[in-house]
Amino acid sequence: MSKHALVLMSGGLDSTTVAAHALREGWEVRGLCIGYGQRHAREIDSAKAVAAALGVPLHVADAAFYGGLAAHSALTSEAHAVPSGRAPEAMAETIPVTYVPLRNTFFVTAAAAALESWMLARIEEEGIEPASLHAAVFVGANAIDYSGYPDCRPEFYEALERVLRLGSKLGSAYGVGIGIEAPIIRMSKAEIVAHGVALGAPLHLTWSCYAGGAVPCGTCDSCLLRAAGFAEAGVADPALAR
Amino acid sequence: MSKHALVLMSGGLDSTTVAAHALREGWEVRGLCIGYGQRHAREIDSAKAVAAALGVPLHVADAAFYGGLAAHSALTSEAHAVPSGRAPEAMAETIPVTYVPLRNTFFVTAAAAALESWMLARIEEEGIEPASLHAAVFVGANAIDYSGYPDCRPEFYEALERVLRLGSKLGSAYGVGIGIEAPIIRMSKAEIVAHGVALGAPLHLTWSCYAGGAVPCGTCDSCLLRAAGFAEAGVADPALAR
Repeated sequence: MSKHALVLMSGGLDSTTVAAHALREGWEVRGLCIGYGQRHAREIDSAKAVAAALGVPLHVADAAFYGGLAAHSALTSEAHAVPSGRAPEAMAETIPVTYVPLRNTFFVTAAAAALESWMLARIEEEGIEPASLHAAVFVGANAIDYSGYPDCRPEFYEALERVLRLGSKLGSAYGVGIGIEAPIIRMSKAEIVAHGVALGAPLHLTWSCYAGGAVPCGTCDSCLLRAAGFAEAGVADPALAR
Repeated sequence: MSKHALVLMSGGLDSTTVAAHALREGWEVRGLCIGYGQRHAREIDSAKAVAAALGVPLHVADAAFYGGLAAHSALTSEAHAVPSGRAPEAMAETIPVTYVPLRNTFFVTAAAAALESWMLARIEEEGIEPASLHAAVFVGANAIDYSGYPDCRPEFYEALERVLRLGSKLGSAYGVGIGIEAPIIRMSKAEIVAHGVALGAPLHLTWSCYAGGAVPCGTCDSCLLRAAGFAEAGVADPALAR
């Protein structure tokens, strides 16, 4: 069984741990980092550094158009402020303004298209037997510390797997499903930190902050969740130690 | 009930008829044309002309990155030839090389993100009551003369509607589903021609050819299906008459 993984890599803690996880599980890994018109590109630099450290070939896609389409978000428009200093309970109450319309649907679809293109080339150009192929998109989605995003829930990914099977040539003509693997979806942030450390993931190269400064702001939802996770895991954040 | 439609407009016969259909049904229509790295941009010019003729505001998105990701197709790569001179029965036998990995999933997701952003602005900035909103993406997909594409089937769109409801803030927080309307999905090409003519759609401005010449090639699958449709409907193709 030949295992092919397309890992969505944002340069953050979660997707870096997921990439290290896929490698450890024996998948042949390719990375995809999508610039979608977010207000800063700092995380793309982190994705490149993480991929290099893991030895994973990374494709960086310029999807800046998406920020123009899905402009109603604090991550794609200056008109909406990024919230700061919120307690975790407050984050989970409502879907935050950092929600980007259908971003994970878009990300997974793009990754699945790259994966399908890779698999079609293996079948139609290299003559590989479809039944010997195993293909999955890996995402760093998390439903526990998820601060209210609807597109981080397991039932969402189950529905999307069905779409990928029905809507692809790989699924409908060759019977090869495109799985969606979300190995940290039920872990707490502390468990993700511990898992990343155990895997030897290059967490020192990761970037989680929603703001685009030279150092993490320390007050946005993402910085606060990360800090709480490292603290609970009893690990010093190596990205701050540098 | 306030009806908001985001119509995917490719500049072709099908999507032009669908846009005219949505207008006739009383929807407030916005158009989206996605350049996805196809080998020629002739159809984008047609989409602009069609939108202008219909009085529909059109957003043209540059998603050229998609052709790089989903390169295993005759529509995005010079390495694969566009088939020509095939009988309709031969077209339907297998999924053709003009299949672009997950293109319709990608197109509908992008349109749904634009639609959701529009609706969130209406709810959160204008104070419109969510229950008064009706929102749908309109696609020119067709399952009859579909020449084998898996992402033109009704069950695919039903699965995708579920994803859009689960994965969006609009669906999960406000209870406003993002519908997918495919009004010509069960029509023959001749019926689409007749419907477009009856609606007064600007069919003379449309472009269907897969090749990028100054005039349609007349031999690719798309040209042959279009010619057969006009012939069966007993209508001269106004795009050829010019």
